Amino acid sequence: MPKLRMGMVGGGEGAFIGRLHRMAAALDGEIELVCGAFSSDPDRSRRSGAALYLPPGRVYDDYRRMMADESALPAGERMQFVAIVTPNHSHFPVAEAALRAGFHVLSDKPATLNLQEALQLRDIVRETGLLYGLTHTYTGYPLVKEARARAAAGDLGSIRKVIVEYPQGWLADRQEDAGNKQAAWRLDPKLAGISSCIGDIGVHAANLAEYVTGLQISSVCADLTTFVPGRVLDDDGSILLRFDNGARGVLIASQVSVGEENALRIRVYGENGGLEWSQQEPNTLWLKWPDRPTQMLRTGAGYLSPLAAANTRTPGGHPEGYLEAFANLYLAFADRIRACEAGRPPAERGRDCPGIDEAIRGMTFIELAVAASASDVKWHQFPEY
Amino acid sequence: MPKLRMGMVGGGEGAFIGRLHRMAAALDGEIELVCGAFSSDPDRSRRSGAALYLPPGRVYDDYRRMMADESALPAGERMQFVAIVTPNHSHFPVAEAALRAGFHVLSDKPATLNLQEALQLRDIVRETGLLYGLTHTYTGYPLVKEARARAAAGDLGSIRKVIVEYPQGWLADRQEDAGNKQAAWRLDPKLAGISSCIGDIGVHAANLAEYVTGLQISSVCADLTTFVPGRVLDDDGSILLRFDNGARGVLIASQVSVGEENALRIRVYGENGGLEWSQQEPNTLWLKWPDRPTQMLRTGAGYLSPLAAANTRTPGGHPEGYLEAFANLYLAFADRIRACEAGRPPAERGRDCPGIDEAIRGMTFIELAVAASASDVKWHQFPEY
Amino acid sequence: MPKLRMGMVGGGEGAFIGRLHRMAAALDGEIELVCGAFSSDPDRSRRSGAALYLPPGRVYDDYRRMMADESALPAGERMQFVAIVTPNHSHFPVAEAALRAGFHVLSDKPATLNLQEALQLRDIVRETGLLYGLTHTYTGYPLVKEARARAAAGDLGSIRKVIVEYPQGWLADRQEDAGNKQAAWRLDPKLAGISSCIGDIGVHAANLAEYVTGLQISSVCADLTTFVPGRVLDDDGSILLRFDNGARGVLIASQVSVGEENALRIRVYGENGGLEWSQQEPNTLWLKWPDRPTQMLRTGAGYLSPLAAANTRTPGGHPEGYLEAFANLYLAFADRIRACEAGRPPAERGRDCPGIDEAIRGMTFIELAVAASASDVKWHQFPEY
Amino acid sequence: MPKLRMGMVGGGEGAFIGRLHRMAAALDGEIELVCGAFSSDPDRSRRSGAALYLPPGRVYDDYRRMMADESALPAGERMQFVAIVTPNHSHFPVAEAALRAGFHVLSDKPATLNLQEALQLRDIVRETGLLYGLTHTYTGYPLVKEARARAAAGDLGSIRKVIVEYPQGWLADRQEDAGNKQAAWRLDPKLAGISSCIGDIGVHAANLAEYVTGLQISSVCADLTTFVPGRVLDDDGSILLRFDNGARGVLIASQVSVGEENALRIRVYGENGGLEWSQQEPNTLWLKWPDRPTQMLRTGAGYLSPLAAANTRTPGGHPEGYLEAFANLYLAFADRIRACEAGRPPAERGRDCPGIDEAIRGMTFIELAVAASASDVKWHQFPEY
Repeated sequence: MPKLRMGMVGGGEGAFIGRLHRMAAALDGEIELVCGAFSSDPDRSRRSGAALYLPPGRVYDDYRRMMADESALPAGERMQFVAIVTPNHSHFPVAEAALRAGFHVLSDKPATLNLQEALQLRDIVRETGLLYGLTHTYTGYPLVKEARARAAAGDLGSIRKVIVEYPQGWLADRQEDAGNKQAAWRLDPKLAGISSCIGDIGVHAANLAEYVTGLQISSVCADLTTFVPGRVLDDDGSILLRFDNGARGVLIASQVSVGEENALRIRVYGENGGLEWSQQEPNTLWLKWPDRPTQMLRTGAGYLSPLAAANTRTPGGHPEGYLEAFANLYLAFADRIRACEAGRPPAERGRDCPGIDEAIRGMTFIELAVAASASDVKWHQFPEY
Repeated sequence: MPKLRMGMVGGGEGAFIGRLHRMAAALDGEIELVCGAFSSDPDRSRRSGAALYLPPGRVYDDYRRMMADESALPAGERMQFVAIVTPNHSHFPVAEAALRAGFHVLSDKPATLNLQEALQLRDIVRETGLLYGLTHTYTGYPLVKEARARAAAGDLGSIRKVIVEYPQGWLADRQEDAGNKQAAWRLDPKLAGISSCIGDIGVHAANLAEYVTGLQISSVCADLTTFVPGRVLDDDGSILLRFDNGARGVLIASQVSVGEENALRIRVYGENGGLEWSQQEPNTLWLKWPDRPTQMLRTGAGYLSPLAAANTRTPGGHPEGYLEAFANLYLAFADRIRACEAGRPPAERGRDCPGIDEAIRGMTFIELAVAASASDVKWHQFPEY
Repeated sequence: MPKLRMGMVGGGEGAFIGRLHRMAAALDGEIELVCGAFSSDPDRSRRSGAALYLPPGRVYDDYRRMMADESALPAGERMQFVAIVTPNHSHFPVAEAALRAGFHVLSDKPATLNLQEALQLRDIVRETGLLYGLTHTYTGYPLVKEARARAAAGDLGSIRKVIVEYPQGWLADRQEDAGNKQAAWRLDPKLAGISSCIGDIGVHAANLAEYVTGLQISSVCADLTTFVPGRVLDDDGSILLRFDNGARGVLIASQVSVGEENALRIRVYGENGGLEWSQQEPNTLWLKWPDRPTQMLRTGAGYLSPLAAANTRTPGGHPEGYLEAFANLYLAFADRIRACEAGRPPAERGRDCPGIDEAIRGMTFIELAVAASASDVKWHQFPEY
Repeated sequence: MPKLRMGMVGGGEGAFIGRLHRMAAALDGEIELVCGAFSSDPDRSRRSGAALYLPPGRVYDDYRRMMADESALPAGERMQFVAIVTPNHSHFPVAEAALRAGFHVLSDKPATLNLQEALQLRDIVRETGLLYGLTHTYTGYPLVKEARARAAAGDLGSIRKVIVEYPQGWLADRQEDAGNKQAAWRLDPKLAGISSCIGDIGVHAANLAEYVTGLQISSVCADLTTFVPGRVLDDDGSILLRFDNGARGVLIASQVSVGEENALRIRVYGENGGLEWSQQEPNTLWLKWPDRPTQMLRTGAGYLSPLAAANTRTPGGHPEGYLEAFANLYLAFADRIRACEAGRPPAERGRDCPGIDEAIRGMTFIELAVAASASDVKWHQFPEY
């Protein structure tokens, strides 16, 4: 059995997230990059492909061409899935083209430019019967898995309060005017959609809260802001949450919390216990108890759940990082493809990867937050689609 | 010149906060406890006084009697101010009696049972021309002073976002039925007022946010909750804030965040820099910058502001704690009394103590938060009185 | 029963440690400063006494005069014990004078200028039958008590390894030439004895190691250094330790670890568990286990030992600091005096204070470390006196 | 230009370090595993190769056969270097065979079973003119690079004191009897050499100290211990160090510090500043100053040195871990091979990888530590070879 063959759309020279996807895919030796449409600029795509040691014939400058040409290759040679790492506005058309051409899709988040596209995408996924994965990377960390396992096991009791935060500071001034491409597209509604802060990072926080608790957000009260003059989209937001079990929550996201890096953090409090996890120190999970000392759980320790263990590569004390979390999503998606192609259910290895349901919820959350913020009405219900 | 003479109302055997007030008052050797009405139970008050080495004649079981008898003593012998450490419902009547009898008042917070009383109290303070202090203890920490000094100096630039949290976990179950007196009165509206969580700790958080930033809360959107069945008052709350300069904020307070102790924490982000301080590790203040390493400021260091230095007792590396912060308020209040009695302005030693204005804002905040939480309207303006 | 009456020798205007002793003595309202010989400069002593609200007649400029005059006062008025807060060279003569005059003695550390004096002091203590206490302040912290209790209970199993460190940075350059009085006397052999770094802080570390583990150091291999040119005494030292049960250890002390404040830290590893405590975050004690998550114990928590609880003043989450630890020694010494004067054994309140035995071991350690460092022989046995 | 082709010796099913090497090699897409002798058990080697998607013809059960067969392949097909991931006793014979057959070698540490072999190895490396790399993984971390850059730039001034520790707890009981293969070979002198604790982890600590400071250890005073009964080799050690510039140091290594994971940590203090780095939180580097706040440097920040930046893959706040550090060594070694094969000096990308000099120093350190511990003489000079 050979490695799984991956194609990539986007991620050419100078791109940020594409390189991370490639490292995540490569880490475990299960997946091989075989082709790509790295840029619509032919020279740039060609140079990118060459730097990745790809044969020129598998480097494209048009994703539609890639779908067509790869489809024409022998089954044992052509790519098996496409990783989409473009700005948001291309996620949907590329995913649609890939699925229509018979390729599974693993897409960067947010899933699409808007909710409408996400709903269409779901239809296409259902029609084609192919696999769709969405890289909410942070759910790939071993101790996020552990947190989910503990909550699911009832260790915390019924959950009462959830605080999830994602402060960044990199957009505290007009980076978009300073030649920062990452900033420029994220603040451009044509490329990013109707939200910058919530669309780029708030949606990660919402996904993490639902993933860890197993609950669903049922209504929100939002206050989004644009602090830096000249911007069209929000660069900060604070959102009160209510969950389907009656739990309350707060979601804080910001791109202008100057001096913060990527400080995603979640705290969950139930009737019997609480937990806390921070992305910047991802190998520690705190469990808090009413009458016993707080416990510090550590990645790689023998006392962790099978779910955490299945998503860990190194023994305790050898820190795992963002790329390993990312690679866990790739591994899980690869498992699903292997199973799908073999016509069997995915092996139960304890790995998972967000899919089209998370895509819908994410796009719903973004649109709901923007609408709620603009409204004088306090609470806005989370619609089901 | 002798030590300043203090009387105390409340704080008898088994009480919690009274003992802390006494230690705070004693620490610097500037203040002497000379009398007290420690309990309305004569035996309990007497035993309490004896344990404090007070002569029986200066131990009372009725605060009104104390005001009267002390007034009758020679000027050089009678108490000079009263510390009020009873549950909330007595704050106003005791303060009124003390002021009317000519004694300065240093009161535990919240100032009164409700806003109406606080407004009356302000009138009495104005009428009598006497001093009133309110022990928002957390503003007494050296590095809270430093944070305020930095914000005031403009180091952060214009402030954009404030996150202040005060999670506790001690009321996550029905402590009030388990013989916990501290729990019982805080959850009894007759003794505590209309709020437990916001009245007891949320008001500290709001005060801290205003103290550090120098801004004022201008409107709120609140979601208070009672998680533990059988309670009348809130035991949790999340509040969106807007400040008078346009800054946004979040205030999170909870008595049911199980496993948390007293985790008051504030983060402030401005255009040019941010800061973070946590009460449980109070000797560290973090300053965050867009393009330079985060700085860890430490109590007692030579690079701190005069304001911080004036509120510090030990050299760097000798941790100062809650009682020292508390004692700073006592020292500041003592300075004011000395100055007042000498007919001169307070010596400029860089110490300060909250007063009647903070009392009014605190009671306003509590009532506003409760009303806003009950309302379907999103934003509620902070009224000025 | 009145407060316990304390006299003080040393600690006049501008002194460092004397002020801390006074705050520690005052905190709990059990002890009253009634007299002092704060300086041999009469004006300075007088001004110091006045600032402390002492009557002029109880302020002395000669400690021998103080002993004589206080002895002549009525029993219910004269001081009951003397706190000695002078530089090291005066500890012995003052302690001797106090004991000979019938006063208990609480002395700052190190006990004396050299071991010979410490042995003499022990004879005098034994002769007079009076109490002698030594302020190894760090053993007063609640969680140091807890650490000792856990080790004594066997929770760690037989102890194998002890690492104790005390890095400071304040003497990394020639502070002694820059008008820093604290630096000047600590580096002057006539005032400080044969060691600066080990005599001032290494001895604290050794004491802490023995206190927490309940073991005794049995031999040492030392490497002391003088880094800053022009100094006679050591300003840094690293010492390998062996303990009487076979455990091994390392003691690191430094006054030139630039940027460090007062970073005393101890780690103990036994067959079954380990512990870690740091003075700069004294309200956390870490317990480490082979197969369970590390536990974070916190001052004030309900699960702590009675020993820790007896040395705690505030509920969990209200940080206690250096002065509270210091005050615990004063409380313990006060208990012993009360009991001694009442002719009964000390009340079993779980408090303790180092005494003459620790004084002997401390002075032995200092002299042994200096001798061992100068020797080519590897191991030097800890002598018993 | 194709990817660089790697062969592997060792690292079959169930092995620990081989898998980590493979992930480190794969991460950046620069290196391709093309063959391996994963085990001398043919079935095990075959299964291992199959799981790695290798063609059966490139899977060997004898490393000598691998060297021979690969040599016979066309230049553009055969492996270009060998990664050695066997237990210590095979490092030398495999490396010798590889070099003699014309292949570069990247070896796990310690370099050889003993110093004598290391010296022989150096001769062979010199003779063959081929490249030799040694995976002292911890020097691959971005902030270890930064620490080295800062020390080299003189930011700390002349270095005075170095404290390096490597506590682990996993061998606190007889894991070697419990079927733990990793434990068994590390404690077997035939497979591991004359030391377990110093040979396995102490040598990493020594290497890190020299790497960061740019200094060389010039003499040692050692106390190694075997705590767990029945063992032949040391499982704990404490070593006093002196460096060639006069700096002093302490190296603490332990396999019985129960509850510790892999807590490698280094602190360096110079005349003007200090630094601290911990492997378990590798994305933070502390810089300490005499008169300014401590600075927290973070991986990925814009203010870091080019050396750190060249060894970083993700933006600030996306934690990098052990595998990324490991991959940095592979990238650096790949650079050297590319340059060597092209007959040019290595591109100056700021990457580096330890080589034969570090191999000699490492083996010297291990043998010196064991000898010094057994001796009654205090100091033992570090010999030059």
